[in-house]
Amino acid sequence: MATIVFYSVNKTAHSAARRCLTSPLKGLASAGESVSRLASTHSRSVPLLPGTRWFSRGTGVRFMSHGTAGRSGNTRRGALALSGAAAVTAAAAVAGFLANTDHFQRAEMATRVPRAAKETGEEADILQRCRGFMSPPVTDISVLQGNKDEMRTKMEMLIMETQADFCKALEKVDGGTFRVDRWKRKEGGGGISCVMQDGKVFEKAGVNVSVVFGNLTEEAAKQMRSRGKVLKGKDGKLPFVAMGVSSVIHPKNPHIPTVHFNYRYFEIEEEDGTKQWWFGGGTDLTPVYIDKEDAFHFHKTLKEACDKHHPQHYPDFKKWCDRYFYVRHRGETRGIGGIFFDDLDSPNQEEVFSFVKSCARTVVPCYLPIVYKHLNDSFSDEEKDWQQVRRGRYVEFNLVYDRGVKFGLATPGSRIESILMSLPLTARWEYMHEPAKGTREAEMLDALRNPKDWV
Amino acid sequence: MATIVFYSVNKTAHSAARRCLTSPLKGLASAGESVSRLASTHSRSVPLLPGTRWFSRGTGVRFMSHGTAGRSGNTRRGALALSGAAAVTAAAAVAGFLANTDHFQRAEMATRVPRAAKETGEEADILQRCRGFMSPPVTDISVLQGNKDEMRTKMEMLIMETQADFCKALEKVDGGTFRVDRWKRKEGGGGISCVMQDGKVFEKAGVNVSVVFGNLTEEAAKQMRSRGKVLKGKDGKLPFVAMGVSSVIHPKNPHIPTVHFNYRYFEIEEEDGTKQWWFGGGTDLTPVYIDKEDAFHFHKTLKEACDKHHPQHYPDFKKWCDRYFYVRHRGETRGIGGIFFDDLDSPNQEEVFSFVKSCARTVVPCYLPIVYKHLNDSFSDEEKDWQQVRRGRYVEFNLVYDRGVKFGLATPGSRIESILMSLPLTARWEYMHEPAKGTREAEMLDALRNPKDWV
Repeated sequence: MATIVFYSVNKTAHSAARRCLTSPLKGLASAGESVSRLASTHSRSVPLLPGTRWFSRGTGVRFMSHGTAGRSGNTRRGALALSGAAAVTAAAAVAGFLANTDHFQRAEMATRVPRAAKETGEEADILQRCRGFMSPPVTDISVLQGNKDEMRTKMEMLIMETQADFCKALEKVDGGTFRVDRWKRKEGGGGISCVMQDGKVFEKAGVNVSVVFGNLTEEAAKQMRSRGKVLKGKDGKLPFVAMGVSSVIHPKNPHIPTVHFNYRYFEIEEEDGTKQWWFGGGTDLTPVYIDKEDAFHFHKTLKEACDKHHPQHYPDFKKWCDRYFYVRHRGETRGIGGIFFDDLDSPNQEEVFSFVKSCARTVVPCYLPIVYKHLNDSFSDEEKDWQQVRRGRYVEFNLVYDRGVKFGLATPGSRIESILMSLPLTARWEYMHEPAKGTREAEMLDALRNPKDWV
Repeated sequence: MATIVFYSVNKTAHSAARRCLTSPLKGLASAGESVSRLASTHSRSVPLLPGTRWFSRGTGVRFMSHGTAGRSGNTRRGALALSGAAAVTAAAAVAGFLANTDHFQRAEMATRVPRAAKETGEEADILQRCRGFMSPPVTDISVLQGNKDEMRTKMEMLIMETQADFCKALEKVDGGTFRVDRWKRKEGGGGISCVMQDGKVFEKAGVNVSVVFGNLTEEAAKQMRSRGKVLKGKDGKLPFVAMGVSSVIHPKNPHIPTVHFNYRYFEIEEEDGTKQWWFGGGTDLTPVYIDKEDAFHFHKTLKEACDKHHPQHYPDFKKWCDRYFYVRHRGETRGIGGIFFDDLDSPNQEEVFSFVKSCARTVVPCYLPIVYKHLNDSFSDEEKDWQQVRRGRYVEFNLVYDRGVKFGLATPGSRIESILMSLPLTARWEYMHEPAKGTREAEMLDALRNPKDWV
């Protein structure tokens, strides 16, 4: 079977990576690593025979219909969409990347942004961009190509790209491989769940994309209306599309924080054919111990992304984040925050999308430098225990308060494994756990009880 | 300081214990253990000086007002209520017990029912019965004595006794000691939480009593009404008392199942002074592996307790249990069930109380023989992992569905540590965990997906 290695360069990620180098973070590991290893880690072999997999990976891509592990789904379509010519184009991109190694090497090493097929910007050929993804997108590539100017296409491409960039950056630092599960939703749409479990660096890392559509249930419509949305359905029906990328990363080392992000888009078609739409999302950090430098870097990176769009975005969405990720029964926030927003629909669709894109593209530069900084930190059993106690609180927030999880668990047809992949591999509940005064554990709790300004 | 050891005999527990000996369970450990060790394990020293503790224990009794660890609360009252004469009476009871060792020795060894001060039946002096408790009761002993025929007094005595019997039986098998926390609720009432963590046999064992009173909040009254209760308040106020004993025991060995029980009483006073009241409760088992003999013993013991009161109790409450402990998003019950009931208010208060008493007094004979049977079972890392995965499901049920937990977390003034002591010390979430066909893990899952009749 002929296979062609392809690889290309991501300009946006590079400029973000370069910005990171000027951040106060130090101690980034293995800055001198050779490009050849990098290229081989991320190379993908593309089988050209119809009916075979989109690309082959260590653990392979698992195709499944909803809730049925291992059953063969729409494997064939994705593979058929790949033409030999496109594979050659991809190969040319790799050559281009290899010729430019010197120039980008240090920035690449700093943040491990893998190069997805985005080099020619938003106008790049959809098929070519898809080659950098962890799996074929949920929507048929031909459909995406036919509707390339529609927001749902742009957003699906963005969330697939975000998933790929983040997964590859994590694989690079961990050395492990994501398991990729494609799943279909009976009622319409599906998703791609990427999970790496019990890796070298990460205890559990999940990066999930979902693109679902259908008609709003009466319950969902009621909920929307309670949020102030006036919705007029045709014959009582409200066709909708909801899509998003979401991720939770739980590292093993208690000095590497947990990160979560989620960027999503919602569209509802009304009786007269007009569409209501909005975006939501956010990125937030949950450390086990306070590291002010990390907190500064994380928030500053988010602030810079926000400031490009509106000076009020960062302060408003930072507050919203502290309010949202609040474990009320503990009187603590889940972590040290970041940004969170929902129902964002102004000034216009393009501008909001552009803002969401900026946010989505900061996840790697927000988080990876922190991972590298603490990669080789030593830790004690006591520090590991404290991490496990904090993991317990994470579970409490996710199961008791998180709107997405509650909605997902209550919705028939949800893919439970994708919803609950945000839970850590291990957690601990100690009765009456209260750190002694003056300890680093007490310092952490104080920051959770009294949210701080980090920038 | 003069201290007097006291101990007395619990007839009811003994007959239950004897019944256990005829059960099909075998392999009860250390049946020949000497009484001297038993007596010394359960001896309590009673300080006679006012202002000191009710009795001294390994970890001591911690007094605290709600949410404030370690702060001194109503220590003084409980201790003052203890007269020297009463202490002497208690000592006489110990002498009585020691004289009768031969007769009761085997039964005692089988189920480790510690002898609380119940020997003279329901009419026994309240103070004397209180001496067997883990702590002074929530309500002042003088108040209990003055209202000894009221249901709230009878029920408070029963839940305190149930807590003591169960805790002592667990201490005996584990060798560890319960930490006893007394807490007060600002709005009225309080509780006693007994927790043993990281013991030899038990990873986490919690046995909690609470007795709270005040006026129903509007929210709570609404909830009551939605359950079909017609409530007429005086000036809009509905004074209530709610009390109960609840327990969750998570052992270390995956071959020893987790057990949960809860028995509770609710009373609301209406405008005209009449009282609405009802009882609720249940006991259920959550094994990690199916052991049909255990399941039979557990359910049969419950069935026998139920059958003494009504032939429909066991079948009805068994079904209710399977329905209630259902993790909907997993399509699994939490465990292999037991009994569960709520809003029980007929045929009359005495008869329902008598039924609840029978149930509460089966918790030791239901569970302890199973613990002893598996005490020395060896287990593999894989079996421990499967236990941890099942613990994760336990957490999911408790945080997502359990009415008590949800109500508690949403109620201002709740003692969170007591509500969440039901969570295991450790738990695990593996992405897409599915046991291979034909394994014992698959057998367990099958029983959770298709509830069975065990008797």
